[in-house]
Amino acid sequence: MSVLMKISQEVKKILSNYESDCPGTKANLARILMHGHLGGTGKMIILPVDQGFEHGPGRSFAINPAAYDPLYHYEMAIEAGLSAYAAPLGMLEAGASTFAGAIPTILKINSSISLIPSGDDADQAITGSVADALRLGCSAIGYTIYPGSNATLGMLENLREIAEEAKACGLAVIVWSYARGNMSKDGETAIDTIAYGAHIAALMGAHIIKVKLPSDYLENADAKKEYLAHKVDISTQAARVRHVVETCFQGRRLVVFSGGAAKDLQGVYDDARAIREGGGNGSIIGRNAFRRPRAEAMQMLDTLIKIYQGKL
Amino acid sequence: MSVLMKISQEVKKILSNYESDCPGTKANLARILMHGHLGGTGKMIILPVDQGFEHGPGRSFAINPAAYDPLYHYEMAIEAGLSAYAAPLGMLEAGASTFAGAIPTILKINSSISLIPSGDDADQAITGSVADALRLGCSAIGYTIYPGSNATLGMLENLREIAEEAKACGLAVIVWSYARGNMSKDGETAIDTIAYGAHIAALMGAHIIKVKLPSDYLENADAKKEYLAHKVDISTQAARVRHVVETCFQGRRLVVFSGGAAKDLQGVYDDARAIREGGGNGSIIGRNAFRRPRAEAMQMLDTLIKIYQGKL
Amino acid sequence: MSVLMKISQEVKKILSNYESDCPGTKANLARILMHGHLGGTGKMIILPVDQGFEHGPGRSFAINPAAYDPLYHYEMAIEAGLSAYAAPLGMLEAGASTFAGAIPTILKINSSISLIPSGDDADQAITGSVADALRLGCSAIGYTIYPGSNATLGMLENLREIAEEAKACGLAVIVWSYARGNMSKDGETAIDTIAYGAHIAALMGAHIIKVKLPSDYLENADAKKEYLAHKVDISTQAARVRHVVETCFQGRRLVVFSGGAAKDLQGVYDDARAIREGGGNGSIIGRNAFRRPRAEAMQMLDTLIKIYQGKL
Amino acid sequence: MSVLMKISQEVKKILSNYESDCPGTKANLARILMHGHLGGTGKMIILPVDQGFEHGPGRSFAINPAAYDPLYHYEMAIEAGLSAYAAPLGMLEAGASTFAGAIPTILKINSSISLIPSGDDADQAITGSVADALRLGCSAIGYTIYPGSNATLGMLENLREIAEEAKACGLAVIVWSYARGNMSKDGETAIDTIAYGAHIAALMGAHIIKVKLPSDYLENADAKKEYLAHKVDISTQAARVRHVVETCFQGRRLVVFSGGAAKDLQGVYDDARAIREGGGNGSIIGRNAFRRPRAEAMQMLDTLIKIYQGKL
Amino acid sequence: MSVLMKISQEVKKILSNYESDCPGTKANLARILMHGHLGGTGKMIILPVDQGFEHGPGRSFAINPAAYDPLYHYEMAIEAGLSAYAAPLGMLEAGASTFAGAIPTILKINSSISLIPSGDDADQAITGSVADALRLGCSAIGYTIYPGSNATLGMLENLREIAEEAKACGLAVIVWSYARGNMSKDGETAIDTIAYGAHIAALMGAHIIKVKLPSDYLENADAKKEYLAHKVDISTQAARVRHVVETCFQGRRLVVFSGGAAKDLQGVYDDARAIREGGGNGSIIGRNAFRRPRAEAMQMLDTLIKIYQGKL
Repeated sequence: MSVLMKISQEVKKILSNYESDCPGTKANLARILMHGHLGGTGKMIILPVDQGFEHGPGRSFAINPAAYDPLYHYEMAIEAGLSAYAAPLGMLEAGASTFAGAIPTILKINSSISLIPSGDDADQAITGSVADALRLGCSAIGYTIYPGSNATLGMLENLREIAEEAKACGLAVIVWSYARGNMSKDGETAIDTIAYGAHIAALMGAHIIKVKLPSDYLENADAKKEYLAHKVDISTQAARVRHVVETCFQGRRLVVFSGGAAKDLQGVYDDARAIREGGGNGSIIGRNAFRRPRAEAMQMLDTLIKIYQGKL
Repeated sequence: MSVLMKISQEVKKILSNYESDCPGTKANLARILMHGHLGGTGKMIILPVDQGFEHGPGRSFAINPAAYDPLYHYEMAIEAGLSAYAAPLGMLEAGASTFAGAIPTILKINSSISLIPSGDDADQAITGSVADALRLGCSAIGYTIYPGSNATLGMLENLREIAEEAKACGLAVIVWSYARGNMSKDGETAIDTIAYGAHIAALMGAHIIKVKLPSDYLENADAKKEYLAHKVDISTQAARVRHVVETCFQGRRLVVFSGGAAKDLQGVYDDARAIREGGGNGSIIGRNAFRRPRAEAMQMLDTLIKIYQGKL
Repeated sequence: MSVLMKISQEVKKILSNYESDCPGTKANLARILMHGHLGGTGKMIILPVDQGFEHGPGRSFAINPAAYDPLYHYEMAIEAGLSAYAAPLGMLEAGASTFAGAIPTILKINSSISLIPSGDDADQAITGSVADALRLGCSAIGYTIYPGSNATLGMLENLREIAEEAKACGLAVIVWSYARGNMSKDGETAIDTIAYGAHIAALMGAHIIKVKLPSDYLENADAKKEYLAHKVDISTQAARVRHVVETCFQGRRLVVFSGGAAKDLQGVYDDARAIREGGGNGSIIGRNAFRRPRAEAMQMLDTLIKIYQGKL
Repeated sequence: MSVLMKISQEVKKILSNYESDCPGTKANLARILMHGHLGGTGKMIILPVDQGFEHGPGRSFAINPAAYDPLYHYEMAIEAGLSAYAAPLGMLEAGASTFAGAIPTILKINSSISLIPSGDDADQAITGSVADALRLGCSAIGYTIYPGSNATLGMLENLREIAEEAKACGLAVIVWSYARGNMSKDGETAIDTIAYGAHIAALMGAHIIKVKLPSDYLENADAKKEYLAHKVDISTQAARVRHVVETCFQGRRLVVFSGGAAKDLQGVYDDARAIREGGGNGSIIGRNAFRRPRAEAMQMLDTLIKIYQGKL
Repeated sequence: MSVLMKISQEVKKILSNYESDCPGTKANLARILMHGHLGGTGKMIILPVDQGFEHGPGRSFAINPAAYDPLYHYEMAIEAGLSAYAAPLGMLEAGASTFAGAIPTILKINSSISLIPSGDDADQAITGSVADALRLGCSAIGYTIYPGSNATLGMLENLREIAEEAKACGLAVIVWSYARGNMSKDGETAIDTIAYGAHIAALMGAHIIKVKLPSDYLENADAKKEYLAHKVDISTQAARVRHVVETCFQGRRLVVFSGGAAKDLQGVYDDARAIREGGGNGSIIGRNAFRRPRAEAMQMLDTLIKIYQGKL
């Protein structure tokens, strides 16, 4: 971010889609979209590190013990030239002062714990606040919903309340929409489910929507009928990304994707190319980054950046 | 709406029924009742688009992909000369600035999600606020209740609280009253059920009441006895509309109807004529509009307007 | 109510029992006690119309369709010279301005819905607020409790909170105490149950207590022992009324009775005579009024007034 | 209470144990400890009348109908020279003005209702507030907890909140600690249970703790081991009282006892002597007072006072 | 603590890890870290006395009746030169004025009660507030979480809210993280569970984390795989302490350990040496102190201090 930040035409166009938001929120969206190597392109790569809550520290970091240190992630995100760094309260508190202003940050405001059984009642605990995000200098809050879980209505109501407060304070709102509960395992990443979850996030007023890459499976019988009758193209990953973007107000909302369980580098790169091709706005990539040796991760992130820049 | 808005006698008469409301709320009711081709007649056609929450985007819009764009609905409602446009938070945020002042808007403040099972516990999530409605320039809030569901008491208590706040801020309150839970499937549209649901909305202090068109079935044994004993006329659609209007304080509250599953144009028109004949105040028509090709929908809406104008 | 309202000695004596209440609340109690044909006698007849919530409009008003109009009830209560008119929010809003100052009004602040099963969990929804009562010019709020229901503790806690707010605003608090749940059907009107329910209302700080007329049945074994051992006279309706009044702080609180299912006029009159004889403070009479043709109802109310005046 | 109230040395010593309380709370504790025939001795007799909530009016007062009148209890407590009078909201409101300043009063702020089944889920409703206590001129609030009930955590959390508010307003906090739920019937008055319940009240920050007189039964196996291993003396009523006082911060908190089911006068007197001998601070005595003829009750109270004065 | 308190280099380094905290919180952390015989070393010994809530008074103090007196614990902690004293509300209120400024205190803000069954639903009651901590002059609040219990999400949400308030008031936040529920008994102290619980506390923003000493058992299959694959050293107590410290942001958060059931002195000392060797920040030692005769306890605490000073 230079002293004279000139907003690119691409980003200006994106910001114009957020016509009901206050200047503060637009400024924070611009901060994320103008930061790092992808600044100004309308694409983003965000590093999220909240797996300590979900899987515990050993399962997350034993493979790469340097990653037990919250500052490791700040540094990697900054040096790799990513768009933003997202983490829960304690992780951000540990480095927010050292790295103040060095990269846009996102306070992940609710978290899941795998120590307790979830199933159809899957829920998360609210573990941060808008006030925390403000005092830590964050640009956005992140909130997860589980459409399909028996806790859905409560999660949406909490999101509504927190998002209203965040918007009034000039923060951006990023919604992680992960369908689960009351559906088959395959249904969680079915194209109709992913699109439904993304659309719910858009309807809730999210500025940036984060979903998993969808498969070509169709979970819901009524939806399947419509998809087939109206020949919705879900044949390729890029086509499916395009459909998800379409369901997010025909591209008026930013949509980023996580790579799911894909582990080999080629898979990660193929995913990114499909996202780019389908008109998605980028990747949220966590475990695939910090669970690799640092040099390898940096190399991978650089390649991803180049893919989104259209260079690879 | 001309620069000098002269309120018609018909609308003045309607407004006089809202004698306990503040001038702000009366002004917003007047905005809805004076807007569009039906302005001044005491009739309304409202376009509601919240099916993305209830059925997901594919089942709602795959048939007409242009409708994935929130601005599509704003434009259709404005160009068709409808009375108001109702939608959830994200949908309104996407166009509220572009179309500021162009048509009265209604923020749908709670929403259902079909990803989770409902049955007797059917409930909705609160997904918007009075503050949202005010900042987006809305004239009214919309709230759904499910009389008969095990969640009824809680839904009424939330409505009470939100309606009190809305009225204090000069907004109008529109209640979608959909009976369900603890009754037969036919009972949901039984005339006694629909009338009960409409009456509850009136008792809760709703300004405009939205119900489904009732059948001539009678669900409740005690009610059936009274309807038969006192020869309530429920023999025709118009007669049933008249009865529902009667149960809304003998016409002192505005009542609009949705067409249910009717799909062919003739059915839609017949419904509207019955509503007009029975003294109803108009239609809320969503899927029957946006799931048709635009030209066809515009034609249909024009015909409906003419029906309510008494021209067809 | 004349311009110079001179409070009768009887009413002054009653007001002196409310020694911990603020002048505003005493003034509102005085308004009710000095209004109508029974003004100044210490007796009251109150017209309550909330059956639309509990039974729906058809079961309540199909027998007398004029009663679908909220203004019908205002007019009847005023013309009959009753003491006050009680109704839920929507009903009062419809006429509060037209009839401002013409009769003391009571906002019924919670309501039951028979569309949902009750049984031992019987509960009501809060459907109005103290703020509503104030803006509508009411003299009192009305609140129902179901002692014996599994919802009892919650209902009492809500009453506590609302009553505290009402008293601080100078309103009177009227408690409808209807025992139900965890008892036999006969037990709901057993003399020990009714007395217990009335006493709970008094302990909660109610100004006026409304119960059903009790039978001579004794529900609770421990209570039965005491009633028999100490020869409590429950042999006649008047004796039972006297006992209930005694349990309301030995007559320091106003107690009014509903007639239950009695339908023929003679039964209604006999009840009123028993209430008068037993020292009760009057009747709350709803369905027995508005479900009769207006002329017949007016005649009945006039007779009741004369009974309470001691003329019949 | 004379015009120049000179606090006795005994009471000064007791007050010094409440070193974290504000002067207002100390003043209210002093009012209770300096009032009546036991004023200045460090002993108290408190009259509580909340049985109307718990057992209903007939089971409580039919034996002595004069006691239906709330003023009866005020008068008895004052004339007998007791230390304080405790009752629920409605009871205090009925006489708080007439007897303003005549005796310290305690607003019982939660209440149980025997109409609903309790068992392991035993709970009470909050029926009064700190604001009520202040406007009625009370010196303290009274709150019941049921350690052992499934509702324990909630009851403690409510107590915490109300006690914090009361202390900030200069009121004293009296906790009725009645173990029940998840234990045997004998366990409710077992010495280890009673001591545990009393200790919880002390830990919660109660100023005065009220428990039942304990038996020599030991309920909990782990506790039993400790009591036996360390030879805790629980052989006599006085020894057990001494142990309970010890568990209340070694006598730094005031502890009063209720007599349980004891009915004959000799039993009541023996209990009082044991309490005195064991270092307890007095009795809370309700049913044993108001269920006797007034003269007999006055005589009994006079004897109890003399016992606590060491004269009998 | 001398008049001129010079913060040691070791403590300055520790404080620098709390870079997002306000000066008030840092000052309170410094008070704890600079107090007593371990002042300035970065090590702590804290005396917690809340077993009266969890086990009752008899099981806790019958073995040493002097400990029924809250002042006993203040005195012992002060004379032994410990770092801080932690206790629930009532315990602190009893001595907070007498010992004002004599030792940093920690208000234990939630508490468990063994009278009620816990199992998978294990939960605690909130029994104190930030306002209480401030008025009693505390340096920190203490809060227990049960990761794994069905109450986990609620406990985390309450912690979030209380911790935010505490931090805004300049208090430090100490989290007792005790895994239980939905796991085997051995799993509660398994190294992966303890590390997970500690990490959750760090993510929640705790300043000081308190866990039990872990065993070398591995509870979770997925975690086990990672621990084995990446050869995490859990072979000795010191190695396990080192791992737990590592999972607390690689030592950026203070971690203290409780000794579990170890009872003989040698075991206590061995534990302390392992904690020291593994880089832990000290011990929280309650029952092992106050359940011994005072002289023996003082001797033991002195030895522990010397161990942490590296002298033994």
